[in-house]
Amino acid sequence: MLSRHAGALARVSQHPVRTPATYRNLSRALNSQVRVSSSLNGRPVALAKRSPLPVGFFQASRGNKSSLRTVFSRPLPTPKSALARFAYRTSAILGTFVAVSTGLVVAFFIYDASTYKEDGHTEDVPVSELALNPRRGGPKNLPIADYFVDDDDCEESRAIKHKPKLVILGTGWGSVALLKQLNPGDYHVTVISPSNHFLFTPMLPSATVGTLELRSLVEPVRRIVRRVHGHFLKAMAEDVDFSEKLVEVSAIGPHGEKQHFYVPYDKLVVGVGSVTNPHGVKGLENCHFLKDISDARLIRNAVVRNLESACLPTTSDEERRRLLSFVVSGGGPTGVEFAAELFDMLNEDMCKFFPKILRNEISVHVIQSRSHILNTYDQALSEYAEKRFAHDQVDVQTNSRVKEVFPDKIQYTQKDENGNVVVKEIPHGFCLWSTGVSQTDFCKTLARKLEGQNNKHALETDSHLRLSGAPLGDVYAIGDCSTVQNNVSDHIVNFLRTTAWEKGKEPESLHISYADWRGVAKRVKQRFPQAADHLRRLDKLFERYDKDKSGTLDFGELRELLMQIDSKLTSLPATAQRAHQQGQYLGRKFNKIAQAAPGMQLNEVEYGDIDDAVYKAFEYHHLGSLAYIGNAAIFDINGYGMSGGLLAVYLWRSIYFAQSVSFRTRCLLAMDWSKRALFGRDIMNF
Amino acid sequence: MLSRHAGALARVSQHPVRTPATYRNLSRALNSQVRVSSSLNGRPVALAKRSPLPVGFFQASRGNKSSLRTVFSRPLPTPKSALARFAYRTSAILGTFVAVSTGLVVAFFIYDASTYKEDGHTEDVPVSELALNPRRGGPKNLPIADYFVDDDDCEESRAIKHKPKLVILGTGWGSVALLKQLNPGDYHVTVISPSNHFLFTPMLPSATVGTLELRSLVEPVRRIVRRVHGHFLKAMAEDVDFSEKLVEVSAIGPHGEKQHFYVPYDKLVVGVGSVTNPHGVKGLENCHFLKDISDARLIRNAVVRNLESACLPTTSDEERRRLLSFVVSGGGPTGVEFAAELFDMLNEDMCKFFPKILRNEISVHVIQSRSHILNTYDQALSEYAEKRFAHDQVDVQTNSRVKEVFPDKIQYTQKDENGNVVVKEIPHGFCLWSTGVSQTDFCKTLARKLEGQNNKHALETDSHLRLSGAPLGDVYAIGDCSTVQNNVSDHIVNFLRTTAWEKGKEPESLHISYADWRGVAKRVKQRFPQAADHLRRLDKLFERYDKDKSGTLDFGELRELLMQIDSKLTSLPATAQRAHQQGQYLGRKFNKIAQAAPGMQLNEVEYGDIDDAVYKAFEYHHLGSLAYIGNAAIFDINGYGMSGGLLAVYLWRSIYFAQSVSFRTRCLLAMDWSKRALFGRDIMNF
Repeated sequence: MLSRHAGALARVSQHPVRTPATYRNLSRALNSQVRVSSSLNGRPVALAKRSPLPVGFFQASRGNKSSLRTVFSRPLPTPKSALARFAYRTSAILGTFVAVSTGLVVAFFIYDASTYKEDGHTEDVPVSELALNPRRGGPKNLPIADYFVDDDDCEESRAIKHKPKLVILGTGWGSVALLKQLNPGDYHVTVISPSNHFLFTPMLPSATVGTLELRSLVEPVRRIVRRVHGHFLKAMAEDVDFSEKLVEVSAIGPHGEKQHFYVPYDKLVVGVGSVTNPHGVKGLENCHFLKDISDARLIRNAVVRNLESACLPTTSDEERRRLLSFVVSGGGPTGVEFAAELFDMLNEDMCKFFPKILRNEISVHVIQSRSHILNTYDQALSEYAEKRFAHDQVDVQTNSRVKEVFPDKIQYTQKDENGNVVVKEIPHGFCLWSTGVSQTDFCKTLARKLEGQNNKHALETDSHLRLSGAPLGDVYAIGDCSTVQNNVSDHIVNFLRTTAWEKGKEPESLHISYADWRGVAKRVKQRFPQAADHLRRLDKLFERYDKDKSGTLDFGELRELLMQIDSKLTSLPATAQRAHQQGQYLGRKFNKIAQAAPGMQLNEVEYGDIDDAVYKAFEYHHLGSLAYIGNAAIFDINGYGMSGGLLAVYLWRSIYFAQSVSFRTRCLLAMDWSKRALFGRDIMNF
Repeated sequence: MLSRHAGALARVSQHPVRTPATYRNLSRALNSQVRVSSSLNGRPVALAKRSPLPVGFFQASRGNKSSLRTVFSRPLPTPKSALARFAYRTSAILGTFVAVSTGLVVAFFIYDASTYKEDGHTEDVPVSELALNPRRGGPKNLPIADYFVDDDDCEESRAIKHKPKLVILGTGWGSVALLKQLNPGDYHVTVISPSNHFLFTPMLPSATVGTLELRSLVEPVRRIVRRVHGHFLKAMAEDVDFSEKLVEVSAIGPHGEKQHFYVPYDKLVVGVGSVTNPHGVKGLENCHFLKDISDARLIRNAVVRNLESACLPTTSDEERRRLLSFVVSGGGPTGVEFAAELFDMLNEDMCKFFPKILRNEISVHVIQSRSHILNTYDQALSEYAEKRFAHDQVDVQTNSRVKEVFPDKIQYTQKDENGNVVVKEIPHGFCLWSTGVSQTDFCKTLARKLEGQNNKHALETDSHLRLSGAPLGDVYAIGDCSTVQNNVSDHIVNFLRTTAWEKGKEPESLHISYADWRGVAKRVKQRFPQAADHLRRLDKLFERYDKDKSGTLDFGELRELLMQIDSKLTSLPATAQRAHQQGQYLGRKFNKIAQAAPGMQLNEVEYGDIDDAVYKAFEYHHLGSLAYIGNAAIFDINGYGMSGGLLAVYLWRSIYFAQSVSFRTRCLLAMDWSKRALFGRDIMNF
């Protein structure tokens, strides 16, 4: 392409007689230029060589060094007519663009050609006998996977074969953040999960209606694990034996049967996530869920199936309305974003291809138990979202609790303005259940085995994310399956120990002065970083709780103070953001521990609070929440709300684009958004 | 971006003192140029205005008309140092490229913003009462869909409401080619199919391993139907009542139950395709198939599942080898291309992410009943493919017939060199069954009802593609479900009728001269275009079959001649190419019939061979066959074979890229190929 263009233009310059009419001015300008240059003494040759080659066109016919030098020194001719000049310059710009683009495409093809592997031959791979025939043991006498078949695959793998075994359960936000933070070479990493992909959950609602493709939201875990030369097992954690340091896992074996085996660990990270919370409602088998990528596929199929059924001549008017009634149970971000995406699809794409009557008969309903949708957001934003939904004719039912879901209708109770409870029904053709999360069976098993696990919804950890009740420093829990215990007042004796020791007294009988209180407060902040916000005005606090005005706080007064702080600390939200920060935190800490290990071995330090010694406690920084609400988006950044239309949507996309897990997913997202713009969402089910 | 660049360079030209060192030469050159121009009488102003703005940079600071005129007349400066000039020109080229690219991106964003539909309001849609409550009737007293809910959706739809009803069964190559050929406005078109997408079948094997995405190979039928303002029903044809002109179809109703109803037609096109041929082999429930896009998804999942299972520590060596043994039953294009794609994936992508031991233990087997794979291709190409497979360590078993497929092994008989039949077994973890096609139940039902349908594998049509036995001009059959009858000798009386009429004799007692024979041959060619190849040397034929050397052919001699031609005519291949040509042919013919209709109505022509009157018989032109065989491709173009490596693969892709159904699928294909180059095939299952 490049050389052809160049040739054509070069011909014009060399044979002015043969140029078409539009090029007349051009060649005239060239001639006049040559005349100009010949009137100059000293530099006639360089100027005479000038030709109307636009920038970026190499002369294909001459390949020697001097032509390379001169080709860049030729100025452009100056045709007289403004229009001709404009046309010429424009074509030069476009020509340059086309030439560079063509060059890039050619380069890409050359790169592409290099990615095909011709040689199909195999190489000898050393595999440990113990990996092929694992020993049996543990409380259930199951095979124990001490070694893996790929332990000797490469130099780096061999180097970490005998490093401490770090086992990570789950491939969600927390686990992946940990894996991306971890220094390669410090641990023998094994990731265990029933799904071999990481899912970019915040955009999952977009995949349900074809705004994004399913595969653009997932990243193969093996690709992420490879960085640390780790291993991946597609298996499910069943139980943990804390004394022998073994995780019991089950996998689908070669014949489709369940196989149980143990994976030994030195450090175990539990990041298994959560399951959908049924809230004790009957008939959830009639609902769709939106937790994993396969759910998005099922939803897409179901929505298109309903649209197709609604077109059949045998479908009555009433049935059509029911089929086109989409109910979303739960007004949190997932439910709201799904309703918004669904409405977009029905409004923007369905009309083009389906009978118009369908557009008139669709209805989208959101059933929310609280008084506002998106109730964790700033109220102004919730109201903006509700206003937006009202404009889009998305029906929002607040203060409503679902009683039962039938195959063709949903029954719910609603409090009216007078506080009376009425039972209502909506016929539906599709129902999504997205009302919060609940604990997995694995987590319930762990909680039953451990002391000090009293939370029914999540595994409790201390502020170093260590699983409470498990041997110190062995087991960690992150993400949705965990909650950080903030029972400041329970640790009062710990906090007072140093002060008491200085004064030679029992902590319980201590009277602490304002100076002592400042020391205690410092230790509280270190141990519970989330409490720092509530420990800003130490003098005011001291004054308020020193009820007998003795100038000192006794044990009872201090406990009351700390209990007051406890009550103000809320548990962290079950979001991707928190899981991500916890994963990063653990990754950094594990790197520190690995660095400190040689020193500790030297000093024969084997027990003690190593975590506390090497790294600070986990502190959550809330960066804000965002939500897509149908050609508009809202942002809640530490209380500062922002909402808007299409520009906000582009911002919303940019944020997720930046947060996306890999270059691959970013490319795919960009491609998907372009696809939607060019061709709309596609409306097929298979 | 654009204006910032322009500004920066403009500043350089206006304040030469402030330019950096590298731009010194530049400004000096500018000054010298100005001097040059001022030495010229008559054109000092225009030349004095020259500045070192590179092509493509507008001066942002001046916005009036004169600046627009002058900005394009500035030539580039000529810095003295070759390196500086080179750097300057290169940056100018890149700058132009970046500027134009940025412009295009901005334009795309503006376009994107215009694709969001803000207004969610509905409009009144007139819907016929008969569409909402269809009348009942027909032999089974089912609802009859005379009218559809979208018959009045737009001006164009209303205009064709009472046009002849063209009903097309199926959405494969034939139906889509017909739809793309048909003039909008001539027929009231209804497309009926259980799948709402057109599948680009030749590339289906690429989708099984993630080289292409599933959605890149399919196009929504509604998008195609929209051009002719047709209707689409996701339903399955069950039966046809030829006397009342009703198709009985069944659809999945709103509650998931099967609903039967009639669709009336004036012209019916049967393009329902075929089903997999089980060849009476037991155990096919242990096999995968590759007919539809959902099969590709299941195969992808199964392959990745096997790879994951093979990594488990509990999987024994023997089991691992079995899991990684992939068997393809059938050495036709589908089987061979699947084996090639699978091997590519295992060889190029699996190694990177899975333990190396897996690469050593994979095996791909092709079981072929004939003596060569790709036996419909030129033998040199078959052998090239076999050589290629031998190099890739793909095991090819020829002369082998599958006896039974077990869940973990496949049993087949093989003829050895001495003609002895031996029974062999291959353990497998995955088996694909791709051994030809068979008739659907619907076609069997039709064939049973009609006289003259004797072919067990397909519906027989005459050379105008009209279903034999059905009322003339009502029903057509195209694609894999049909075969064109070439029984030339059965029509001998027809051919002789004109000649006999001219001579006033019975056709049977006619003796035809060479001149008569030429007339007969002409009519044979018209009626059976496929026979033309065998009717080239009329004199030779006449001579050979005039056994009594009487100079004339009697009825018996002529029949023998035509029977000889019959035997040479093979049935057309069941390929996308044939279906496509048949669809195009029908589309063109239907356009002609619609054009001729007013004239025929005027002359009260209602019966007779209208098809023959308005258009020629169908003639198949074989364009060639191609196949992908693992980083290589083969082409068989009318006997001329071609094979090669990567360049042939690019050619293979280009051909399919060009044949692809829409701009949308072409874009998606290009994106997918880029994705594979950049990120490899993705190895996730969900």
